[in-house]
Amino acid sequence: MELTGENLIAGEDARGAASFRAVDPATGAELEPEFHEGDAALVDRALAAADAAFPAYARTTAGERAAFLRAVAEELLALGDALLERARAETGLPRARLEGERGRTVNQLRLFADHIEEGSWVEARIDPGDPARTPPRPDLRRMLIPLGPVAVFAASNFPFAFSVAGGDTASALAAGCPVVCKAHPAHPGTAELAARAVYQAARRTGIGAGVFSLLHGWGHEVGLALVRHPRTRAVGFTGSLRAGRALFDAAAGRPDPIPVYAEMGSVNPVFLLPSAVAERWEAIAQGLAQSITLGVGQYCTNPGVVLGVAGPDLDRLVGALAERLRATPAGVMLYDRLSAAFAAGLARSRSRGADLVAEAPAGAGPTRGAPVLLATDAARFLADAALREEVFGPSSLVVKARDAAELVRVAEALEGQLTASIHGTAAELAAHPRLVETLTRKAGRVIFNGFPTGVEVGHAMQHGGPYPATTDARTTSVGTAAIVRFARPVCWQDFPDAALPPALRDRNELGIWRRVNGAITREDVRPGG
Amino acid sequence: MELTGENLIAGEDARGAASFRAVDPATGAELEPEFHEGDAALVDRALAAADAAFPAYARTTAGERAAFLRAVAEELLALGDALLERARAETGLPRARLEGERGRTVNQLRLFADHIEEGSWVEARIDPGDPARTPPRPDLRRMLIPLGPVAVFAASNFPFAFSVAGGDTASALAAGCPVVCKAHPAHPGTAELAARAVYQAARRTGIGAGVFSLLHGWGHEVGLALVRHPRTRAVGFTGSLRAGRALFDAAAGRPDPIPVYAEMGSVNPVFLLPSAVAERWEAIAQGLAQSITLGVGQYCTNPGVVLGVAGPDLDRLVGALAERLRATPAGVMLYDRLSAAFAAGLARSRSRGADLVAEAPAGAGPTRGAPVLLATDAARFLADAALREEVFGPSSLVVKARDAAELVRVAEALEGQLTASIHGTAAELAAHPRLVETLTRKAGRVIFNGFPTGVEVGHAMQHGGPYPATTDARTTSVGTAAIVRFARPVCWQDFPDAALPPALRDRNELGIWRRVNGAITREDVRPGG
Repeated sequence: MELTGENLIAGEDARGAASFRAVDPATGAELEPEFHEGDAALVDRALAAADAAFPAYARTTAGERAAFLRAVAEELLALGDALLERARAETGLPRARLEGERGRTVNQLRLFADHIEEGSWVEARIDPGDPARTPPRPDLRRMLIPLGPVAVFAASNFPFAFSVAGGDTASALAAGCPVVCKAHPAHPGTAELAARAVYQAARRTGIGAGVFSLLHGWGHEVGLALVRHPRTRAVGFTGSLRAGRALFDAAAGRPDPIPVYAEMGSVNPVFLLPSAVAERWEAIAQGLAQSITLGVGQYCTNPGVVLGVAGPDLDRLVGALAERLRATPAGVMLYDRLSAAFAAGLARSRSRGADLVAEAPAGAGPTRGAPVLLATDAARFLADAALREEVFGPSSLVVKARDAAELVRVAEALEGQLTASIHGTAAELAAHPRLVETLTRKAGRVIFNGFPTGVEVGHAMQHGGPYPATTDARTTSVGTAAIVRFARPVCWQDFPDAALPPALRDRNELGIWRRVNGAITREDVRPGG
Repeated sequence: MELTGENLIAGEDARGAASFRAVDPATGAELEPEFHEGDAALVDRALAAADAAFPAYARTTAGERAAFLRAVAEELLALGDALLERARAETGLPRARLEGERGRTVNQLRLFADHIEEGSWVEARIDPGDPARTPPRPDLRRMLIPLGPVAVFAASNFPFAFSVAGGDTASALAAGCPVVCKAHPAHPGTAELAARAVYQAARRTGIGAGVFSLLHGWGHEVGLALVRHPRTRAVGFTGSLRAGRALFDAAAGRPDPIPVYAEMGSVNPVFLLPSAVAERWEAIAQGLAQSITLGVGQYCTNPGVVLGVAGPDLDRLVGALAERLRATPAGVMLYDRLSAAFAAGLARSRSRGADLVAEAPAGAGPTRGAPVLLATDAARFLADAALREEVFGPSSLVVKARDAAELVRVAEALEGQLTASIHGTAAELAAHPRLVETLTRKAGRVIFNGFPTGVEVGHAMQHGGPYPATTDARTTSVGTAAIVRFARPVCWQDFPDAALPPALRDRNELGIWRRVNGAITREDVRPGG
């Protein structure tokens, strides 16, 4: 498939003004073709198309949308090597990782297809009327309906799974919302290919092309215009705290505020309790080294802080971890700003008194990230918020506490996190209720004897957490529960059965679980209550 | 029970600085005692108490919280005439209405008690681990946990049901969140009585007094300090658009933004389709007159705009409505600022060209609101946003369209609404899909052949809607679904069964509905998946 480098509005090429090229971060070479940035006029066209497409798309059956999502998955796979090769060139990510991520993306689309076909996600609630009551009880039926056009911001670090046809897009389309996606400028060609797969799937399944548009842009203008556009009803974003907060502020400042689901990363603290350190120091060091360096550390769930009680056991673990990190080669990072930010973050931590424990060789070529291990003590970590900021890349900061009580104080000082991990024996876990409780209060996912990287796509995943991990801790951006971000409840009062959405009719023709008079059931509603 | 007029922090009197008195709106007389306003220091004390109480309260069982809520209901009833009489003096609302509202409030507390005892509201999801998979699938278990301290703002127009022990407080306490409530300054004595009922219930059921505090205040300072306090995790509010937006902006501007659930009212359009007008003009006029004047029009769901196709049928209906409104006596409004705002709103509409159709006699005494009917045509209504603003009080604006197509255009021009109503035959409903779709997109509740006032407290109610009806259309402030506003999901990964919350253990000891591997069930989880 030939790349045109254009913005794509409802399936049509639309040339923007300023142009830019993608860069292969492994070589620094510019890649063909030239891409054109969107602008306010194109944002307006994309939202007009999305809004025009919305009523018909909202009326599609779950089966029709499921077929569309499965077709997107097929079309992504049908791109074959062209997609993988373009993504490799634009991101520097190795082929095996990209194949794995493509599989994850395809499975995610299919999982949402299954989920909407099962159908209970609409949270149908029926309180049948009672004309005999004084006053008569009205017939009330409530379910979730799609919000309207959703702006999706692709992430740099997952060119498939959190990008054009990634989780935000899949969940918004599954809910019945059109999507206007802003491509990440570090992989515009990958974005265009994925967008064309979406259009191909829309054509094949009879879904109008208006449900999807793709805009390019390096600066903030296109993104802010998307968030501020009156027809945009919600925003999905994965990226930095600074960018996510800017989008949140823009949405909150609208005449009519809209929800922003921004996943902005965190330091994902890993707490090591003494018995675990004594008994499993080698395995923990190995697991940490893998988790810290996986994907050159470019994961929101990268374990950025490792906390334990100072002493010879912890020193042994840190020594083993340092040795493994030193032996891990530097990797190609996604783009030059990211590797520069990684270096700056390390320099900041060291300027605040974090000691260098280990550093892998820098490696040759541009845009490299070499694993680094830093260390400090809990008192300094508690005293300096700068040490608690995320450093995006293959590094971690060991924090040594005097005792378990100081570990709890450190936990209490942490900001919101996507994840928090605890390594310990079952007895240690039971003996530290305050630590568990504190971390549960701070994080979206608490992990026992595991590592935070590897975010399973399923029903029970929670990928989110209190601010600044996200702007909306009530939601997840991974897993089937992500769909409710793009829906809101409506109650129909005293509507004739035939005028109700199928999910709410007396006869439960969809076979979904519903709350009828408060009780969860798949039974039909008996007329008369 | 003697009123002290003090702020109540975790059950203890705490004297504020500035003082004020409640006023009987029927007479203009000041009431004893003097009340003292809270300040930033008292806000801080209240949040410190709430935060200290949170961990233990979050650990209570649903049964313990249910017993607490039921005890609050009993203690409200045990206040007997003292509560009703104080509320009557402070609000001017008639005794029968107050008895009804007390019943609603008591039932609401009991409904939330039942709801948390049933227990499925926590949305438990379990994806059992699979160690045999490559890579091993972790064990993931997700459920909702309480957010933390919630700031609740009492509303003027429901001194019981949307105030100190009203729906926001009941749902927050049910979820496991402590509450710091700002009393509405128009009924501080009613607020104090209800707060003392909450404390009495907490004592009786062994719940610490730290889960509840009450602060007084006439100005914005106490409210803004509550919303900005670092320990506040969410805000519930019912009131005006201006005040709700100010709280929303303050919360969005925090270093760590928090959710604000502000219900700010709407004009609740009532669309009259021609056959309904021809066939049922008299009944509709009667229903509208009742709905417009109920509670002196002081409901968020008051039908502020009535829309129909111009012609003799509509004229007949409007004539009948005008006659009924003229014959409805002026009522005492809640407080003087409200009756002044009502008069100002009517004057604004008339200055924008709305014609006066009917006006009841003004009545004697201060703070009166007399029913008023205005009319305009759809072209003017479409051209002037000022005519689409809410006028809080016993009035409505008839909008005459040339035809049904113009009705749809008016629907499209409306802002977000709590409710939208359609009167028509079943055939008319089926013949106007675009009108139904547009109103569904604009409103939280769509009503067929009914009137918007009367918000049933149940499972299927949706009391909310797109901005400016609320700041968060994804939620409801009435009905059992309101509880999820004060919770967020957490996922436990690979935790030992005994270390999990009971709702997530293999054995479903709570008997709740859970999503296990995606399927909704009450079965136990079989070890090994």
